[in-house]
Amino acid sequence: MPQLSTRITGLNDGGSDGWDVFYRARALVAAGHDITELTIGEHDRRTDPTILQDMHASAVGGHTGYAAVPGTDGLRDAVAARVAERTGVATTRDNVLITPGGQAALFAAHMAALDGGQTGLYIDPCYATYPGTIRAAGGRAVAVATTPDTGFLPHPRALAGPARGARSLLVNTPNNPAGRVYPRHTLDGIAAVAEAHDLWVISDEVYDTQVWDGAHLSPRALPRMAARTLVAGSLSKSHAMTGSRIGWLVGPEDAIARAAELATVTTYGVPGFIQDAAQAAIARGTEPETDVAAPFRRRRDLLMRVVAAEGGEAVRALPAEGTMYVLLDIRATGMTGAAFADALLDAEGIAVMPGESFGQAAAGHVRVALTVDDARLERALRTLARFARARVPA
Amino acid sequence: MPQLSTRITGLNDGGSDGWDVFYRARALVAAGHDITELTIGEHDRRTDPTILQDMHASAVGGHTGYAAVPGTDGLRDAVAARVAERTGVATTRDNVLITPGGQAALFAAHMAALDGGQTGLYIDPCYATYPGTIRAAGGRAVAVATTPDTGFLPHPRALAGPARGARSLLVNTPNNPAGRVYPRHTLDGIAAVAEAHDLWVISDEVYDTQVWDGAHLSPRALPRMAARTLVAGSLSKSHAMTGSRIGWLVGPEDAIARAAELATVTTYGVPGFIQDAAQAAIARGTEPETDVAAPFRRRRDLLMRVVAAEGGEAVRALPAEGTMYVLLDIRATGMTGAAFADALLDAEGIAVMPGESFGQAAAGHVRVALTVDDARLERALRTLARFARARVPA
Repeated sequence: MPQLSTRITGLNDGGSDGWDVFYRARALVAAGHDITELTIGEHDRRTDPTILQDMHASAVGGHTGYAAVPGTDGLRDAVAARVAERTGVATTRDNVLITPGGQAALFAAHMAALDGGQTGLYIDPCYATYPGTIRAAGGRAVAVATTPDTGFLPHPRALAGPARGARSLLVNTPNNPAGRVYPRHTLDGIAAVAEAHDLWVISDEVYDTQVWDGAHLSPRALPRMAARTLVAGSLSKSHAMTGSRIGWLVGPEDAIARAAELATVTTYGVPGFIQDAAQAAIARGTEPETDVAAPFRRRRDLLMRVVAAEGGEAVRALPAEGTMYVLLDIRATGMTGAAFADALLDAEGIAVMPGESFGQAAAGHVRVALTVDDARLERALRTLARFARARVPA
Repeated sequence: MPQLSTRITGLNDGGSDGWDVFYRARALVAAGHDITELTIGEHDRRTDPTILQDMHASAVGGHTGYAAVPGTDGLRDAVAARVAERTGVATTRDNVLITPGGQAALFAAHMAALDGGQTGLYIDPCYATYPGTIRAAGGRAVAVATTPDTGFLPHPRALAGPARGARSLLVNTPNNPAGRVYPRHTLDGIAAVAEAHDLWVISDEVYDTQVWDGAHLSPRALPRMAARTLVAGSLSKSHAMTGSRIGWLVGPEDAIARAAELATVTTYGVPGFIQDAAQAAIARGTEPETDVAAPFRRRRDLLMRVVAAEGGEAVRALPAEGTMYVLLDIRATGMTGAAFADALLDAEGIAVMPGESFGQAAAGHVRVALTVDDARLERALRTLARFARARVPA
């Protein structure tokens, strides 16, 4: 076999992809064990039948040939209107590229921003694909550290050094895994650094319908930032359409036109019948989105109550203002997140994600996905709390 | 706006994407004109309702969450069995990555083969996305010329020079736009060059069900070639599923495992309900494929008859052993393919693709897609022949 490119062999930088506990839990489930999976961001509901009916009607109606590579006019217009309404930023069809999911939009954004060897910044902790996305685009992935003490918010002072010579900064609010919704002053600081160092801000906003406290603010809506911000969005989380792989990239017209040329050679467009279903879903407005988000809000509250009541010294929940996740600080046990998650799975059949899967900053934490029914979640959290308390050194 | 990467701004190497006639024809159709479109490889039939019903049943049945990134076990097994049966090469699930269409497989293959600045070869004339695909992967796209005199088959002697220092060679048989099915001796020559220069052979075989004369031979089936061949396939052409974006990459296990890591950051998988429909389509065997291919075989024969009878000195059809296209040599008119196609559209409302859209080697030719009903195709071909005859210098 000829050599593979160092880019593809280096995607995970020699390490594992950090999903060992997840895979182990899946294998246990497959083997018939009763495991409570609080790992990935997969809703415990399916895509709404109305959406699937729209999809089928479009396909049977004849939309089974190539769709225009940048997306259908209808869906691009619908996304533009949605983004304009929620952010206040003028947005038209020409600012929108339809992509097969939010991850494809993040990849396209980095392909547009980075040439080989250039630096793309991301904020630690982060969604597990971020460094690999930057490396796949040929970039050097550089983490900007945050700390538990400031709730994992990036401090502009921590950004200034790495920003020197960098080309892009990947931001995610509402934030996975930290559950934070970035406040205005944090985003103002990010914008100032981006302007000072002429960075692209690549903004992952796929959780924009899952906000429990405060309000979602898109970096693109800050003064002068629309010209240097590329936003990744999708219907995966908002409409429980994870498996449909439907999302978008929003940005300056020139960048979107280039990204459409890129899409011609990376994917050659997105199924038209899925786009038609997505357009209809957006047309139904915010009520279905609120409905999809409601269980996570309720379970966030449940988690806060249970952990406050039973966590003792051993477990502390971080403030979770949005997303379908909460980070738990288990440093009082003296264990790493990975060791804790492994032991919890073995002893109690509960699978959570080690903080270390999301970078170095969240070491000693575990991420809980609020993706099982309330009763099961409550039982699992009580068990987790008891398990943690028993491990605090005397 | 910060600078865009030179990679994304350089995808088309400063030129147009070569689809001007196609876009102009589409605009005329939209404006209500009666245009015969013989441009792109889009069937004049829709995806079979049975396939759409399978898709809907899978979605309604609950397959709407994330599918495994490398593809479902069922579809990977089905593709492996299909490839093994047709090529005789042992192929298992671990040799198969499911991709959102054949183009995504070509992109993944080049990402696996090329590091930034390394040379990827392709054969001129070629499908219009090839050079951009290599450039998107950071590679230097280098054309290997062929000539009309040898029917656009690549000669090993023409390959040896460019192969020095290159990392990959993109091969397409059955060939778009030339309609050739590469004979054994051509592929043996390619294999020898690939071995001598330690190249990856990236083999685009999406037309493998459209063979009219001879037999399709996959380069992967030649001695020792399975270890250095990455095959792109899809159901777009075989099952009229262009809009479903479902394809695959087949290759050595290590390469496929890495390509799956890449897919995690480029697309995060392919809709499960589309994969289930594809698996069922493959399970139905070759009869539906033969049915989808039949009109193109029939129209190829029709074209050969009409052009032989009415083309005179002005138009000569190249032997078309496969695919849904035929190249017409119109050099006797003294016109370029682009000028001919433009004038034909303006004067007669018939849209064909200039040979120049597929590289330099096919200059003075036009490509006819056999994608309208027989009667309309015959009328268009008679008109085209008359039009060409009137343009031959006295």
